[in-house]
Amino acid sequence: MNSEHNGQRITLVEVAPRDGLQADPADLTSEQKIELVERLAAAGHRRIEAASFVSPKAVPKMADGDAVMAGVTRSAGVSYSALVFNQRGLERAMAAEVDEICGVVVASETFSQANQRASVAESIERWRAISGAARQAGVTTAVTISAACGCPYEGPVDPERVLDIVAEVAETEPDEIVLADTVGAGVPTQVAALFEGVSRRAPGIARRGHFHNTRNTALANIAAAIDVGVRTFDASLGGVGGCPFAPRATGNVATEDVVYLAHGMGYDTGLDLDALIATTAWLEDQLGHGVPSLVAKAGGFPG
Amino acid sequence: MNSEHNGQRITLVEVAPRDGLQADPADLTSEQKIELVERLAAAGHRRIEAASFVSPKAVPKMADGDAVMAGVTRSAGVSYSALVFNQRGLERAMAAEVDEICGVVVASETFSQANQRASVAESIERWRAISGAARQAGVTTAVTISAACGCPYEGPVDPERVLDIVAEVAETEPDEIVLADTVGAGVPTQVAALFEGVSRRAPGIARRGHFHNTRNTALANIAAAIDVGVRTFDASLGGVGGCPFAPRATGNVATEDVVYLAHGMGYDTGLDLDALIATTAWLEDQLGHGVPSLVAKAGGFPG
Repeated sequence: MNSEHNGQRITLVEVAPRDGLQADPADLTSEQKIELVERLAAAGHRRIEAASFVSPKAVPKMADGDAVMAGVTRSAGVSYSALVFNQRGLERAMAAEVDEICGVVVASETFSQANQRASVAESIERWRAISGAARQAGVTTAVTISAACGCPYEGPVDPERVLDIVAEVAETEPDEIVLADTVGAGVPTQVAALFEGVSRRAPGIARRGHFHNTRNTALANIAAAIDVGVRTFDASLGGVGGCPFAPRATGNVATEDVVYLAHGMGYDTGLDLDALIATTAWLEDQLGHGVPSLVAKAGGFPG
Repeated sequence: MNSEHNGQRITLVEVAPRDGLQADPADLTSEQKIELVERLAAAGHRRIEAASFVSPKAVPKMADGDAVMAGVTRSAGVSYSALVFNQRGLERAMAAEVDEICGVVVASETFSQANQRASVAESIERWRAISGAARQAGVTTAVTISAACGCPYEGPVDPERVLDIVAEVAETEPDEIVLADTVGAGVPTQVAALFEGVSRRAPGIARRGHFHNTRNTALANIAAAIDVGVRTFDASLGGVGGCPFAPRATGNVATEDVVYLAHGMGYDTGLDLDALIATTAWLEDQLGHGVPSLVAKAGGFPG
């Protein structure tokens, strides 16, 4: 999974089945989620966030993670990941035979309390315990620093604070550190500086970006991250997954749009743009509403 | 107007009253157009494309350019520009006392015939005649090379062809050369290389970018152009002006979105983001439909 050193390859982690659907108004059945995961693999995805194993009371929509993982026909070479917050979640994830777990540490105290019901220091400790157990079990680990470009409650977040957290989580030796612009507030200069900081504070650990297009800056931020050597990005088919902090606004950057950018810039993603666009049309039918991807509407170029 | 040398200033040319409205399904009255132009100046715009003086038969929606220009209460320090294709148009523009004219040369032969009813060579000759007369009259001149990142009919356009046209129009000594991604196909690497080419082939002439967000790449392209020193960009309030080549798709990049990016990157635009967002809400009422700007929906950050 450390594709960072492969200069002309960009790897997307497809987050529609988990992060996308969790923030969508529609409620898909486990069967629909399973079909989505399988269609994404068929379109060329090799990393898919397929489930979460967090409290079913806190996130009832994602309570069927075990059933989804059990139902998916695994494709060779595809890594299926899940979000995990605690020991119980890790046990469920390992029972479900996920290839990779992802944890979250929030960069601002207010948002950490609201989102994780824990201080930043407490969630780093939780991650340390989970990731240690996961590594012992041979499961790949990634940790997301969320609100890295701004907090929905506190506003701007000091980049030095973000990088101090990066240095702390680097001690847990994750396979990857993810910076997430959870509120879609980031701009390219900020993103490039943050990722350069990650290289300094967590040398040798692969970097990944998670961008929201809430203020239309996601592709500019991805291009800036590419410029400083980042080669792995989260993206959600169709741009599924609104912004929980701005109800009228867009959230996750759309996979098709990132693929158009990456291919146009001469990178290989292993993804079939036409197959992704067709899968988005299928997904719109399942959700019962349209999605924000622009490439899904305009098509590639030349078409 | 040559703001290119002012490192921390980015100037936007507001094109909603002309380029935007021309491609919008709504038909505003001259009074509504006049109010739009005045509201844009009040929000801080210092360059506004207010009218076109092309054949009223070809573009009936813009036939009232004389009335709009006559009706606008001019603000001190604001340059009002108009699109002009021929001698008759130039005479109307000068009678209307515009400060600046903009001509168009298309980078592909098929699109040039479809859009201008002339070959590329013929439209360069037309521009030479118009711009010479305009300069003699003391009117500022800008020329747009459209389809610079791709043609709706021919597909990819050879960048060397674009730059050969740049070199030819540079002989007319325009105040500014504009590269337009008319189909919204461009990506940052392509845009940076084209603008670096403009500096080589038209040294000393200010550069301006006109980007469409059809495939979500507009802000990434603007950031790439900023990186190579471009400091002036067209933008349309709310993102008004769809893509004529992809009816479901977005066209012009939204002014608010560019302003958010520029301010976040530390540039001054002289524009008031909240006033722009309020003007977009007013414009949506006039048009009777929503617009694609994302910052208009999400607001700035912190809000």
